[in-house]
Amino acid sequence: MVRVGMIGSGSWGTALAWLLANNGHEVEVWSHKEEMTRMFREHHENTDKLPGVILPENMIFTSDLQETCRDKDILVLAVPSPAVRSTAKKMKEYIRFGQLIVSASKGIEEDTLDYMTDIIEEEIPQANVAVLSGPSHAEEVGRGLPTAIVAGARDKKAADMVQMVFMSPVFRVYTSSDLPGIQMGAALKNVIALAAGIADGMGYGDNTKAALITRGSAEIARLGSSMGVHMETLYGLSGIGDLIVTCASAHSRNRRAGYLMGQGKSMEEAMQEVRQVVEGVYSAKAGLKLAREYQVEMPIIEAVNRVLFEDYPAQEAVKNLMLRDGKDEIAEWD
Amino acid sequence: MVRVGMIGSGSWGTALAWLLANNGHEVEVWSHKEEMTRMFREHHENTDKLPGVILPENMIFTSDLQETCRDKDILVLAVPSPAVRSTAKKMKEYIRFGQLIVSASKGIEEDTLDYMTDIIEEEIPQANVAVLSGPSHAEEVGRGLPTAIVAGARDKKAADMVQMVFMSPVFRVYTSSDLPGIQMGAALKNVIALAAGIADGMGYGDNTKAALITRGSAEIARLGSSMGVHMETLYGLSGIGDLIVTCASAHSRNRRAGYLMGQGKSMEEAMQEVRQVVEGVYSAKAGLKLAREYQVEMPIIEAVNRVLFEDYPAQEAVKNLMLRDGKDEIAEWD
Repeated sequence: MVRVGMIGSGSWGTALAWLLANNGHEVEVWSHKEEMTRMFREHHENTDKLPGVILPENMIFTSDLQETCRDKDILVLAVPSPAVRSTAKKMKEYIRFGQLIVSASKGIEEDTLDYMTDIIEEEIPQANVAVLSGPSHAEEVGRGLPTAIVAGARDKKAADMVQMVFMSPVFRVYTSSDLPGIQMGAALKNVIALAAGIADGMGYGDNTKAALITRGSAEIARLGSSMGVHMETLYGLSGIGDLIVTCASAHSRNRRAGYLMGQGKSMEEAMQEVRQVVEGVYSAKAGLKLAREYQVEMPIIEAVNRVLFEDYPAQEAVKNLMLRDGKDEIAEWD
Repeated sequence: MVRVGMIGSGSWGTALAWLLANNGHEVEVWSHKEEMTRMFREHHENTDKLPGVILPENMIFTSDLQETCRDKDILVLAVPSPAVRSTAKKMKEYIRFGQLIVSASKGIEEDTLDYMTDIIEEEIPQANVAVLSGPSHAEEVGRGLPTAIVAGARDKKAADMVQMVFMSPVFRVYTSSDLPGIQMGAALKNVIALAAGIADGMGYGDNTKAALITRGSAEIARLGSSMGVHMETLYGLSGIGDLIVTCASAHSRNRRAGYLMGQGKSMEEAMQEVRQVVEGVYSAKAGLKLAREYQVEMPIIEAVNRVLFEDYPAQEAVKNLMLRDGKDEIAEWD
């Protein structure tokens, strides 16, 4: 048994708190709003974001960040990615040297191109930062459906600790040393999910979607290889695994926003209708910046940027992608 | 314009004949049964296997194999994989030296572990053999929905020729020199599709399926790397791309057979209900043979074999997969 502080209580934080309590750990859950803490104390359930997943009677709920950070073996940061920097800033003074903090948020900061673990390390330099990422709908984790995920850290001890704490008969945790690879895949998959959503919205089929996923992954792998991350990570659970689950999901905000745009709505109209942060819109810009910096050809990510920010018709974008000069996939001729 | 002989007129042969005719080529379609030829002559449509896809008035239909092979720039072999060897044997005497034959069938021969192009090369040594493979439901190709695929050949000229003949504004063809990689992915994906079907049948969610697809691909990549094929091929359109489309499809016989077994039916009962060749059952044995020959750990393919041939309960197989010792995905620790 270890003591866990869960910073953030959206659907993912709630599902992970449930999992960790089921694994026999003592979990304290922090919400940024008093009213959320009251909801948890009353119902032991996130009735808004993850209804039906009942948390144990003895779980502690609070809006006191200091109290949640104090005396914990492990802290999990599961706030939305745009809130990671400000939350880490507030946590800093409560964190002891070497404190293990697991980032459960996905994304890349548009201006800095920082990953979530970079942000936490910058804001809380005394912490030991790890990441947890992979194909894992909170709704399914909270129902105990079999899930596999990756725990990444710079040192093996930290990764092993995260694996030990989270692993269960229905939650398989692989360890990894490739922090940048894990987070690169997790951020850029949202751009490909937007493209897949656009194709779905235009009435295209499974062939088109599979082609976009596969060729999108190949683009990300090309970029990753220039940046020195492992191809196995990008083709692993946190990369293509998470991309597959996102593109298959009717719930993904990224896929949904793409779908609306494929049906002819503008980016602004789609954002308005989805009414939540659509991570892929930020990651699309970041992806394009990286493609230019590392001089890698990324036709799908470029096309998504044109559709998002230049009012370029989606139909034209698909036509251009299909009609580019014929390419090799592998060219080692006899 | 080139002259094409299409050997085989199931759903895939029909869809490809439609595509090639739309590309402006002269296509002659061979069926192994006179009654199929009569159906095509009367309706210009495969009313049984691909209804709604209307072939041009001037297309020639025949059951005369010699006539279909004669004077063609390119032959496409699109018969079911168990019929490839016998059909190739019959074709042999009509094939001129250097004749280009494109294999559009997927599979691996259980006894010999031969791929389809190996079989054709053995039976028709004077031919120049290529392969066409990727995520491509015939129903969607026949409706003109955007599709991307790989054309593989030993020499660049042959691959370029296949690309030139098939490529269209809705059918994007990548070339490749990796014949074994393309066919290995195409055969073994059916085993993973069986596993994904079993998980679906047991009521598991998208997390489980994405984990099986991703870790299944990792197994295939490990084997492929021992056998000297390109990882990029296994993670390309003919590998993970085709796997994604198969696992997403309600029509895939492999996924469907797995689904029935996940619901508690035996392999025999599932085969009986699906009533068609379930390629993955043969490929599962072939995959296991290869895993042993190359001493590669392939836990998912082993589990599928146990469920198929040893009456091992699917529930137990999943539990074992989840509870194996914790593994690394990437391990290059500081």
